Amino acid sequence: MSENTAYLVKPRDFLFGESEDDALELDCGKKLYSVNIRYETYGELLPDGSNAVLILHALSGDAHVCGRHSPDDRKPGWWDEMVGPGKPIDTDKYFVVCSNVIGGCSGSTGPRSLNPRTGKRYNMDFPVITMADMVRAQKRLMEHLKIKKWLSLVGGSMGGMQALEWAITYPDLMESVIPIATTARLSPQAIAFDWVGREAILTDTNWRDGNYSENSEQKGLSIARMLAHITYLSDESMHHKFGRELQDTASYSFDFKRNFAVESYLEYQGRRFTERFDANSYLYITRANDYFDISAKAGGELAKALEPVKCRFLVVSFSSDWLFPAAQSVELVKALLKNRAEVSYCDIKSSYGHDAFLLEADTLGKMISDFLRNRLEAVRGR
Amino acid sequence: MSENTAYLVKPRDFLFGESEDDALELDCGKKLYSVNIRYETYGELLPDGSNAVLILHALSGDAHVCGRHSPDDRKPGWWDEMVGPGKPIDTDKYFVVCSNVIGGCSGSTGPRSLNPRTGKRYNMDFPVITMADMVRAQKRLMEHLKIKKWLSLVGGSMGGMQALEWAITYPDLMESVIPIATTARLSPQAIAFDWVGREAILTDTNWRDGNYSENSEQKGLSIARMLAHITYLSDESMHHKFGRELQDTASYSFDFKRNFAVESYLEYQGRRFTERFDANSYLYITRANDYFDISAKAGGELAKALEPVKCRFLVVSFSSDWLFPAAQSVELVKALLKNRAEVSYCDIKSSYGHDAFLLEADTLGKMISDFLRNRLEAVRGR
Repeated sequence: MSENTAYLVKPRDFLFGESEDDALELDCGKKLYSVNIRYETYGELLPDGSNAVLILHALSGDAHVCGRHSPDDRKPGWWDEMVGPGKPIDTDKYFVVCSNVIGGCSGSTGPRSLNPRTGKRYNMDFPVITMADMVRAQKRLMEHLKIKKWLSLVGGSMGGMQALEWAITYPDLMESVIPIATTARLSPQAIAFDWVGREAILTDTNWRDGNYSENSEQKGLSIARMLAHITYLSDESMHHKFGRELQDTASYSFDFKRNFAVESYLEYQGRRFTERFDANSYLYITRANDYFDISAKAGGELAKALEPVKCRFLVVSFSSDWLFPAAQSVELVKALLKNRAEVSYCDIKSSYGHDAFLLEADTLGKMISDFLRNRLEAVRGR
Repeated sequence: MSENTAYLVKPRDFLFGESEDDALELDCGKKLYSVNIRYETYGELLPDGSNAVLILHALSGDAHVCGRHSPDDRKPGWWDEMVGPGKPIDTDKYFVVCSNVIGGCSGSTGPRSLNPRTGKRYNMDFPVITMADMVRAQKRLMEHLKIKKWLSLVGGSMGGMQALEWAITYPDLMESVIPIATTARLSPQAIAFDWVGREAILTDTNWRDGNYSENSEQKGLSIARMLAHITYLSDESMHHKFGRELQDTASYSFDFKRNFAVESYLEYQGRRFTERFDANSYLYITRANDYFDISAKAGGELAKALEPVKCRFLVVSFSSDWLFPAAQSVELVKALLKNRAEVSYCDIKSSYGHDAFLLEADTLGKMISDFLRNRLEAVRGR
């Protein structure tokens, strides 16, 4: 493919759960009807079905991993450096799938969707979902696409959590899993940050118990996003990127408006986020994160929880990630090894903090590309 | 003193700045009139004036360091384990002084005080103050108390910043400085957290541009406090203290109310804080923190900024403090050594995070007690 030609991709929809039998059962005990899954696929499935790769997106991601929807799209998908023709996850070799999580606001059924029972938006009537619920919906998509087994499940951050959930729930349905910058269970510190972010939304008078008007400012969501954003960077990367630089002024402005470059950056990130994300989705998805603990059903014993696992693993962490620190990946790797799983592990030296999984495409790309090629050769050689 | 007798102390007030000449000049260019400094003293000043110790409180602290105001006070002062008769900073040996910072809300002039020009509360008409302004007010108190030279200035966190500001502004007025769990300049990460906390206050409709009603809930302030509180703990201490324990329920509640123990703790801390602290003071004091950078006047060169310094230093950091990490203390120590200052430095191994300066009283106490005794002996031996 020429560099000058945009790689054009098309979002698709898969609707299920119209009937009682077909509805999606949720961990909270409720059922979800008329569930839409927005997804994209790239490349072609080999006749033997061996080259399917599922990519799982992070908190604010979506199904649009790479390429452009139209030639004049300003930006490509969120992981375009990693996925596409000739890229590390090479769509000339692999059949790549990515879907928006349920609870999200980028096409799949979530709080912003119409509740089939009322004809109105769910908003806060949407049921509280879990990572396992998201994965159960992805499993339906897998069946719909007639994929028998994934060559690999690849996900960073919350995407990695879904990959781990897949590995213990459907151990026969994948050859390998690549959890990146993630954890087997959310730490109390991460739960605490989520709590504060949600409180900012819940106490925002414009949010109106979830029934906010499209035109109203969502300051609560903006605050939640700014806070989360700090946890995605590292102390070091903030020093490099902003230091104590001032914005627009030569000296302190002696007021409470943005004065430092870092304040200006956060304000921009917060505002931008409210333009594209649903405050209610933010509540539901962060709650799913809090509740994520694959060891829960095994009484907190991670090694025991991972007993069902059968596939190979490539676990990747980043040295300056303090949201899901390397120690949590090491804990996961040890628990996998206890189960005699075949695990490769790398802690990539990076100053980018948690966001490194999006920014260290070179190092990460080489690692993933080799791992996937080896997996495909092993499977096809059988 | 018997263990059963409460150590009773009395808050005092020092008023200055009634006239144009006597007013407090501020870094922002404005002047503050009719300034009150709420302070407490403990012990007796020796006839040679050699044993005066100034304690500088942190963001949410006050002048009430130790003892009780009345025998039935439920709690003693905020550093009672460290200061008092027979304690590490022994009020039987030292004349100890502590004052509430200007901009605060615990007796000293701040946004909640009456503006002498209008007869109404300042609220957001209060001028934006800096750490140097706080120190300038403390200098006035020093003169009022007829103290010629401090044996030592002791402060944790923001108190340590004031101690450093003293050391470069009035290098002849102290024998020693003990900066604890602090920094020579706020990092962009700390500025970022302050920004998000303040945004929560500024966008709270109950805050009403600072003219909030006493009876209204201050949710913005509560959110700011909860966020700050996370930065005072460490990932490790949160694991020990809360883990993923649930509060009040045996299983996930599938809603957005507090469900985890850590959420319940934060909610309590946030609410409690709004009962005792002024939302406007919080804005002003955090802004003074952001603006704190003793290297600013020396073009960012810390060693150059510290050239005036003459006293001895005992610098203390805590291994798990990630708000003002040990590396920032090491940077300070190196810059002091470059100026041939006499510096003792200790990074105390602790899992308590930034709050360790309040919780590691045993280890910290022994260190400070020895240091002060040596300083006093050296001074009196002259």
